[in-house]
Amino acid sequence: MTPAGTRGPGPPSDPRDAPIGVFDSGVGGLTVLRAIHAQLPGESTIYLGDTARVPYGPKSPDTVRRYAREAAGFLTERGIKMLVIACNTATAHAFGTLSQGLDIPVLGVVEPGAREAAAASRSGVIGVIGTRGTVESGSYERAILAARADATVRSAACPLFVALAEEGWVSGEVPELAAHRYLDPLFAAEIDTLVLGCTHYPLLKPMLADVAGSGVRLVDSAEATARETARLLSARSLTSSGSAPIAHHYVTDDTHLFRELAGLFLGAPVERVESVALGQGPS
Amino acid sequence: MTPAGTRGPGPPSDPRDAPIGVFDSGVGGLTVLRAIHAQLPGESTIYLGDTARVPYGPKSPDTVRRYAREAAGFLTERGIKMLVIACNTATAHAFGTLSQGLDIPVLGVVEPGAREAAAASRSGVIGVIGTRGTVESGSYERAILAARADATVRSAACPLFVALAEEGWVSGEVPELAAHRYLDPLFAAEIDTLVLGCTHYPLLKPMLADVAGSGVRLVDSAEATARETARLLSARSLTSSGSAPIAHHYVTDDTHLFRELAGLFLGAPVERVESVALGQGPS
Repeated sequence: MTPAGTRGPGPPSDPRDAPIGVFDSGVGGLTVLRAIHAQLPGESTIYLGDTARVPYGPKSPDTVRRYAREAAGFLTERGIKMLVIACNTATAHAFGTLSQGLDIPVLGVVEPGAREAAAASRSGVIGVIGTRGTVESGSYERAILAARADATVRSAACPLFVALAEEGWVSGEVPELAAHRYLDPLFAAEIDTLVLGCTHYPLLKPMLADVAGSGVRLVDSAEATARETARLLSARSLTSSGSAPIAHHYVTDDTHLFRELAGLFLGAPVERVESVALGQGPS
Repeated sequence: MTPAGTRGPGPPSDPRDAPIGVFDSGVGGLTVLRAIHAQLPGESTIYLGDTARVPYGPKSPDTVRRYAREAAGFLTERGIKMLVIACNTATAHAFGTLSQGLDIPVLGVVEPGAREAAAASRSGVIGVIGTRGTVESGSYERAILAARADATVRSAACPLFVALAEEGWVSGEVPELAAHRYLDPLFAAEIDTLVLGCTHYPLLKPMLADVAGSGVRLVDSAEATARETARLLSARSLTSSGSAPIAHHYVTDDTHLFRELAGLFLGAPVERVESVALGQGPS
């Protein structure tokens, strides 16, 4: 099978010019893609949003692993040079499986933010916010403690934030009241660093920065993941040779619904989006 | 295949004692099941929540139809005497397909509420709230106008309400502010009746009644659907003969996650919940 929608009938002749593969359950991972485009403007990308099965958060680890394997298989068939799991839930449940099973570098969205927070915090008291699934998985807490054994981690699940981001209610009374309700216990515990552990939350960052005040540093997992992507490509001598970059988007449901939300998350309209089927056959 | 989990090795000898099948994308349809149990305490039920693929709202009509066919197939294989589509999105996209393809009565969750609202309104100015998918489908508007041609329908999509219901934030400042933001344009249009067109919204009913005030009558689609279920069974001489009723629940994902939320929606703990696979084979 040819790497559909990359650059012609076969894989690029220079392996450095193969695209970076990025997947998420839906649109949230576009904040990671946006950060990759901003920090690595010369790289081609293939994004897959599993929109027919979004969200992964409330689904069981086994189901999420199966979906993640299918998504990764779709992208590796298209000749990617590196895989970014731009989904906290998939990272928590499927990072081990995917990184062991593939012969390209695999990066999740948890470790980069956790390491940045561990390095940035002065007091070592670090807050983490995410979906209920991410918080209950304990994945950020483990990654922060691995990077800094003396850290104290305070987590809060903020399920309403995804709905607020998708609704475009990113400032004003409703999100601010919700933020206080979720975050005041973390501020009372005197966190000095707050990890935005969900790919939807970068949209709420200005509001969260206001609510948190100047004494709390926000760590954006999407930006941290893009920085780590750049470091990894450079370390493996996989940085693009300079050929013209191409961005492709695939979704597992209707492209129309994806286009509507994508602008909010990517900060620009998406071009080249195709609908594909995953998991139609026996698993 | 035996009707798993009904009442023994075969279907009940009296067809009136077969269960009512109820399905939804997740837990929301449990408000319909709860109303059926309250109004028809002698009926056995089988509930299917397609929790591995929840929510249907943001998915395309074709995808929703495929999922709904699979859910209906699962329930009819278990010998149900009637099918209730306890999901607004599935009703909007799949009611026609399912009612034409099955030889048992099929009831959606849209028409009963629409007809009650059409009958209850004095002025004929009727508000409808639901998910974005339900509102954009226009299904309530069409059903209301079919029942009352002189009606004026004002709709508002309230995507945050599902997250608020699942979070248990059913009263207080955040839901009230969100409700005003969504509903004030409907009150300004002088609606005298408001249809709760989403199975999650019964949890918010007391708060919505406060915000709406005494001049607006709330119509709960879940209760209207249960009343219509009772009428249909009676009209077809299918009301239970009086044998002891049994309630079974199936989900397509982990049962643990379902149990956690189910209490909120059903008002009681669920017993007998099993996980089953749908759509694993070629579609």
